[in-house]
Amino acid sequence: MQVAVIGANGGIGRELVPRLAETGHDPIGVVRDESQFGAVRERGGEPRLGDLEGEFAPALQGADAVVFTAGSGGDTGWDKTLLIDLWGARRSIDACVAHGIDRFVMISAYNASDPMAAPDAIRPYHVAKRCADDYLDWSPLEATILRPTALTDDEGTGQISAAFDYRDADGDEIPRADVAQTVVACLATADTVGETIRLFGGETPIEDAIRPNN
Amino acid sequence: MQVAVIGANGGIGRELVPRLAETGHDPIGVVRDESQFGAVRERGGEPRLGDLEGEFAPALQGADAVVFTAGSGGDTGWDKTLLIDLWGARRSIDACVAHGIDRFVMISAYNASDPMAAPDAIRPYHVAKRCADDYLDWSPLEATILRPTALTDDEGTGQISAAFDYRDADGDEIPRADVAQTVVACLATADTVGETIRLFGGETPIEDAIRPNN
Repeated sequence: MQVAVIGANGGIGRELVPRLAETGHDPIGVVRDESQFGAVRERGGEPRLGDLEGEFAPALQGADAVVFTAGSGGDTGWDKTLLIDLWGARRSIDACVAHGIDRFVMISAYNASDPMAAPDAIRPYHVAKRCADDYLDWSPLEATILRPTALTDDEGTGQISAAFDYRDADGDEIPRADVAQTVVACLATADTVGETIRLFGGETPIEDAIRPNN
Repeated sequence: MQVAVIGANGGIGRELVPRLAETGHDPIGVVRDESQFGAVRERGGEPRLGDLEGEFAPALQGADAVVFTAGSGGDTGWDKTLLIDLWGARRSIDACVAHGIDRFVMISAYNASDPMAAPDAIRPYHVAKRCADDYLDWSPLEATILRPTALTDDEGTGQISAAFDYRDADGDEIPRADVAQTVVACLATADTVGETIRLFGGETPIEDAIRPNN
């Protein structure tokens, strides 16, 4: 599959592009700056320009699936949270609908399940993520929403703990590499379509953990 | 009807509470600070405390309809736009569903129809308003969404121009008093349930302007 990764140069995107290439997919790395093209190519991706606040939809052309892992980051203002994390995500979903791209995997955040439960300082971020998730949920796309807990740059273990939306859950931080591997596993099956899954560090092989009846 | 006005001490709320009282409704003025109770009473409303970031749902108890006209205002950060204008609106909608309050009128903003068309400086605000509107639209409530253009403190004229969502429109600024009077008119009929209406200053009597087939 041609899989477009929006935010290909972010923490999870950098882990995801090479894993997609190794699994036999053709990753498209959507980035907002041509200076990032070389880095995308080195990881096995086809770089494309896409500005979530400007010209964007053409970057997804030809894709069979889209992964949204872009974010405005912690160094910009909350205005960018509204424009990128929320509206940029909605524009990505709209672009998929317009292009007839059915499969969408959203990298969300743990407390999007209940933004009021997030610590004060990051509550607005989780409001934005939740609203983007809901827009996806209400869209006609075949969606999987992943809500990892705190992310680390540790090496991937290939093992996680996954909690489907309706279960109580709590757990350890999780390496970005394992979140990326979870995306690859989700794209390999229709099992997680329509599911919202919280992700933790854990001891269950990823392919098993994401089965709804595991 | 008991009509709860969320943001009763704001620019539109101050115009709305006395108009509701004069029309034979029992307005509940929801404010976030007890120091505003006297002002609500003077305008004919029953003041109640409601904190859109904290304890809130009890303030709506007993209401037959809710009008959301709260906003974080221009002097706070975009974090408050996410927490009040967006998440606070969603909490208000959730509280109505929980309390079995069916009728909801949302005071939105003109460019919520297309946030990317808003001037840069206020685009994030219109993203928040649009996402709140959509949440209401997708809720089971009997909703009317009003999107006034630029607001003034001029005296009300009793006349406006209204454009239902599917029509092209452009027009003059509108007094807050006329927006408030439009809310009263919407509450008097089921005609605008399910409608999203842009409001401008104009020359059509309000009761006529809000008829979908006018």
